[in-house]
Amino acid sequence: MLVVMRMDAREEDIRGAVEKIESHGLKAHPIPGAQRTAIGITGNIGIVEPVLFESLPGVLEVIQVSHPYKLVSREFKAEATVVDVSGVKIGGRDLAIIAGPCSVESYDQTLRIARAIKEAGAHLLRGGAYKPRTSPYSFQGLGREGLEILARVREETGLPVVTEALDIDVLDLVAEYADMVQIGARNMQNYTLLKRAGRCGKPVLLKRGMNATVTELLLAAEYILDQGNNQVVLCERGIRTFADHTRNTLDVAAIPAVHRISHLPIIADPSHAAGKRHKVVALSRSSVAVGADGLMVEVHDAPEEALSDGYQALSPGEFSDLMVEVRNLAPVVDRDVPSYVGT
Amino acid sequence: MLVVMRMDAREEDIRGAVEKIESHGLKAHPIPGAQRTAIGITGNIGIVEPVLFESLPGVLEVIQVSHPYKLVSREFKAEATVVDVSGVKIGGRDLAIIAGPCSVESYDQTLRIARAIKEAGAHLLRGGAYKPRTSPYSFQGLGREGLEILARVREETGLPVVTEALDIDVLDLVAEYADMVQIGARNMQNYTLLKRAGRCGKPVLLKRGMNATVTELLLAAEYILDQGNNQVVLCERGIRTFADHTRNTLDVAAIPAVHRISHLPIIADPSHAAGKRHKVVALSRSSVAVGADGLMVEVHDAPEEALSDGYQALSPGEFSDLMVEVRNLAPVVDRDVPSYVGT
Amino acid sequence: MLVVMRMDAREEDIRGAVEKIESHGLKAHPIPGAQRTAIGITGNIGIVEPVLFESLPGVLEVIQVSHPYKLVSREFKAEATVVDVSGVKIGGRDLAIIAGPCSVESYDQTLRIARAIKEAGAHLLRGGAYKPRTSPYSFQGLGREGLEILARVREETGLPVVTEALDIDVLDLVAEYADMVQIGARNMQNYTLLKRAGRCGKPVLLKRGMNATVTELLLAAEYILDQGNNQVVLCERGIRTFADHTRNTLDVAAIPAVHRISHLPIIADPSHAAGKRHKVVALSRSSVAVGADGLMVEVHDAPEEALSDGYQALSPGEFSDLMVEVRNLAPVVDRDVPSYVGT
Amino acid sequence: MLVVMRMDAREEDIRGAVEKIESHGLKAHPIPGAQRTAIGITGNIGIVEPVLFESLPGVLEVIQVSHPYKLVSREFKAEATVVDVSGVKIGGRDLAIIAGPCSVESYDQTLRIARAIKEAGAHLLRGGAYKPRTSPYSFQGLGREGLEILARVREETGLPVVTEALDIDVLDLVAEYADMVQIGARNMQNYTLLKRAGRCGKPVLLKRGMNATVTELLLAAEYILDQGNNQVVLCERGIRTFADHTRNTLDVAAIPAVHRISHLPIIADPSHAAGKRHKVVALSRSSVAVGADGLMVEVHDAPEEALSDGYQALSPGEFSDLMVEVRNLAPVVDRDVPSYVGT
Repeated sequence: MLVVMRMDAREEDIRGAVEKIESHGLKAHPIPGAQRTAIGITGNIGIVEPVLFESLPGVLEVIQVSHPYKLVSREFKAEATVVDVSGVKIGGRDLAIIAGPCSVESYDQTLRIARAIKEAGAHLLRGGAYKPRTSPYSFQGLGREGLEILARVREETGLPVVTEALDIDVLDLVAEYADMVQIGARNMQNYTLLKRAGRCGKPVLLKRGMNATVTELLLAAEYILDQGNNQVVLCERGIRTFADHTRNTLDVAAIPAVHRISHLPIIADPSHAAGKRHKVVALSRSSVAVGADGLMVEVHDAPEEALSDGYQALSPGEFSDLMVEVRNLAPVVDRDVPSYVGT
Repeated sequence: MLVVMRMDAREEDIRGAVEKIESHGLKAHPIPGAQRTAIGITGNIGIVEPVLFESLPGVLEVIQVSHPYKLVSREFKAEATVVDVSGVKIGGRDLAIIAGPCSVESYDQTLRIARAIKEAGAHLLRGGAYKPRTSPYSFQGLGREGLEILARVREETGLPVVTEALDIDVLDLVAEYADMVQIGARNMQNYTLLKRAGRCGKPVLLKRGMNATVTELLLAAEYILDQGNNQVVLCERGIRTFADHTRNTLDVAAIPAVHRISHLPIIADPSHAAGKRHKVVALSRSSVAVGADGLMVEVHDAPEEALSDGYQALSPGEFSDLMVEVRNLAPVVDRDVPSYVGT
Repeated sequence: MLVVMRMDAREEDIRGAVEKIESHGLKAHPIPGAQRTAIGITGNIGIVEPVLFESLPGVLEVIQVSHPYKLVSREFKAEATVVDVSGVKIGGRDLAIIAGPCSVESYDQTLRIARAIKEAGAHLLRGGAYKPRTSPYSFQGLGREGLEILARVREETGLPVVTEALDIDVLDLVAEYADMVQIGARNMQNYTLLKRAGRCGKPVLLKRGMNATVTELLLAAEYILDQGNNQVVLCERGIRTFADHTRNTLDVAAIPAVHRISHLPIIADPSHAAGKRHKVVALSRSSVAVGADGLMVEVHDAPEEALSDGYQALSPGEFSDLMVEVRNLAPVVDRDVPSYVGT
Repeated sequence: MLVVMRMDAREEDIRGAVEKIESHGLKAHPIPGAQRTAIGITGNIGIVEPVLFESLPGVLEVIQVSHPYKLVSREFKAEATVVDVSGVKIGGRDLAIIAGPCSVESYDQTLRIARAIKEAGAHLLRGGAYKPRTSPYSFQGLGREGLEILARVREETGLPVVTEALDIDVLDLVAEYADMVQIGARNMQNYTLLKRAGRCGKPVLLKRGMNATVTELLLAAEYILDQGNNQVVLCERGIRTFADHTRNTLDVAAIPAVHRISHLPIIADPSHAAGKRHKVVALSRSSVAVGADGLMVEVHDAPEEALSDGYQALSPGEFSDLMVEVRNLAPVVDRDVPSYVGT
């Protein structure tokens, strides 16, 4: 932490600030400059809030230097984490492709789509049993029945299943059925849910909130790791900006930013960012090219009849074309698109 | 809903679109223009998603015309709702002033602050027992002990209590102790929590998420009203923008915007928006002047020792000065600042 | 400037950074902490860019401590600047009210509106002769003819005139006719125009760009002051955010933020922020209450026939009501609304 | 245009709105719905502003349906425009790579960098002679001397030159020296400059303003095309958002969005978006993968000594590596990276 004094701060102001710092068991390092003095602070500053010094006489501002995350940081763990979702690896050289419908609507629909995406080369099946919807009058998901459908389709196809736990009431149930538990963007700062996900015994897919900084995303992940679960995959899905040509602005730069700061893998969800089917393929390529560890793509075999978000779902044919593009692109960025035997 | 055809759409494209619309039991109203044709849709369009028509041949775009909220809308209920929080009215001519510490830290601290704000003229006591914190390493609140402290302080001072329910696990407990249940900004789209709040039997204070549009805020309130609870007060607390001179950008225009669309009252929280004590008073004046139905202000008698957000808390003396300003300002905007007998 | 070393930086990395700093004639102040070392830099750092040190071995990041503005800063000039526009004071205890049509459309229209706003108590007349328009097919202003109309209306009414200089081609002409030269939001970082405005011999009204931080706004003003013109009034007119209920989000907190950092006056333009007539009065009150030194409001006597932005213009009657509200509000915030003799 | 009536609008309100519409020579198409009536408007609506109808009794809102651009639109010209910059094609199958220093600092520096980028395979040389700088105390460019250096280096290397015209004073001079005239992001809505660029006789590189929507970018281009110059290349360079891990948020989705609406080519500037050297390569890949028609990348052979923006410049070696990646990536997205004979 750095306490910056005003240009007109008096000697006694500086002395006062130093004493205040030391009264908290910290060490003060005054740096007298040409125009003003700054005071560096060292010691156990993890527990110190800037307010302690901000309103002292002669203080201009207090600047925090270190970031508050630990377990998620590359400074603490240098090598990249590879998350294992029932045999599918996320975070290493292999790209992981997650696909499926926005919502689980029926056994037949889910099975048809699962077979199509498996055929095209996807590694994991997504599908919402519990849906967060802006309006209370929109379809809210099949609930437990949706989880059961996913389990049956997994048995049929061998594809591990990723699905969202909307709240703590259903998290344990979701963790029981799913191979990977998804925490949605709107819940990225639902701390109770994050803590519970940290104890659920399954890998977690944590989506970035649409107004979250990379620091906040990493701190949300820190909640999960802090509970003993380090099997966390992050997901960039677009942020909210003034730009109105997509539903959200896919912040592809967040992907190398996370890789630089953290050892956790990060994938991209081009479907929610685009909000329109016709941009999904381009954003998928863009995400793989920037270094994403995988993709999560919505696929529906009758997008026009989908009960939610159909306008952003690829058809099975479009998804199959996308997989061809991903396979062509992968070697250019030193990646593989694996085929899992038996799945 | 309006389906806009491309300039080069053929007659058969238009015919096809009309047929598709009618096949959903809706009525199509083609509007041939100089350059292109648009097709108005009427009927029960509440259940129709734009995707149904977006990818038809010759269609340029689909524009949604009506907004999806109902119960919160002034079109459904013209007169302003007045919420009653244990005798304190929010939403009428009277301004409601909520004040208190960010976190409940101890009985003595809470009582001291409550007495000070009551003396200054506040109507309701705020104080967090459960705290949503960006970092897992920050103080998370006293929990049930905090609720008990609030109840004892209410008994002592007569001030009704507003406190946040962080998740569904504690909502019923919070509703038991509090006079008004707060849903925080990070939980504005925690739909399970909203539904539960709609059945909790207490008035609800719903804070706008920092990336939420006014429409989304109203739809979140719709979740609560839809469960039978119409005692909802909204709260503007700043949105996230690029501007870095405050913690969040207080969107004062949201207040008249809500008043125009909805019958629900809306107050302002200048403390979280400012993020700095020295802007709280100016933003409070600004909020009352724009038409807010009340204020929620953080007050701490030793801000430098506060366990959270001390840098944005007013001292009791500053709060007392603020109340003088609010009382002077109120008549200018046709408002009263009531004194409740016995409280 | 502060150079923060990585936790795993070696002794020789720190030594290397110190040497590099000193090789630029600066002084290095290493601050060894529990987890990492930071190095404070003092000396003539105005000319140093962080890049000099950012890519040295062992460096985590470089943090800039001081802000680059000088002449506009309260640290350099403590007392508030009062700008004098042909006798109208902006920046002291008096509120300055600027009103008039978006565009000068004709002599009759301008005179009618000028008389109405003068009657209601406005101090300065606004009106665009050169209009920046998003589309090349929109009305672009009357140009020199508009300036002449403004001059004739000033003669008739005694109201000093504020009008925009759209580019350097017309700046001198505008400065010749106008009492105050306006630099529009889209031109806030048109540095050639700013420099020329700094030499034009007239007070300047500088509007905040809709994506500008307060720091950038102050640096834009610095360009003008740096050329010898300290008669600068800033104007908050709303920033671009995701919020869609107003044309722009009026960032009222920018007003106390500017007052804290700078000695320059700042007014608000609620018309452009609102984008809708029905929010202009509420935002005007909000701006005065937060501490604005004045208002700039669009008024048109036939808004529906206006050639630009009619939907945000008040009618003369609405403006007159607004002035009543401003006069009632002024004493509450220790302000006067003066009547100039002879005008 | 669509006029949406309130639910409680009376028959006479609807009749009044229809009459008002028809009084402007337009045609009204009432669409009575279950809950409310909407009125479609056709005819010559290009000149009609929504305000005409917005404040009529019973009107809820007015929705604009058509977009105001023409010449830039694919509806008017279906085939993609290929811009020819002294023999280098931008907009077809070939990727165009523009590289060079942020600022022209000296003949030797510029020549050294130009040779290095040519060797690596770049097609065009960039370099600023006139620099827009946030602070008046930063290096502002060499001016005409910089243009002369660029011309000499072009003669030496054969690389056509792209450089920014900061204002109308220098636009003709820049157009005389440069092969392509750049309009910077801060000038995207400097309409006088845009019009002048439309008459300058050289291809124009138009950068997206950091707060501009895609519609506004296209309308800015419309200003240039409207003056008879259709040799316009757009450039996505990042938008301003709350995200703080890059200088700006590269909005890669703007590239397919522009391609869908307009026939103009669009390239990406990953250097300004990243603001940090270490993200430039990843964002370059991302931009090519999403469909950009080229890249503009800052290269400096002594980034630490650069007079501006050195922290985002690649070294010649890094740029050479980037070209290898681009060449590998190009065929995956059906692109070529041409080698021009003689250059």
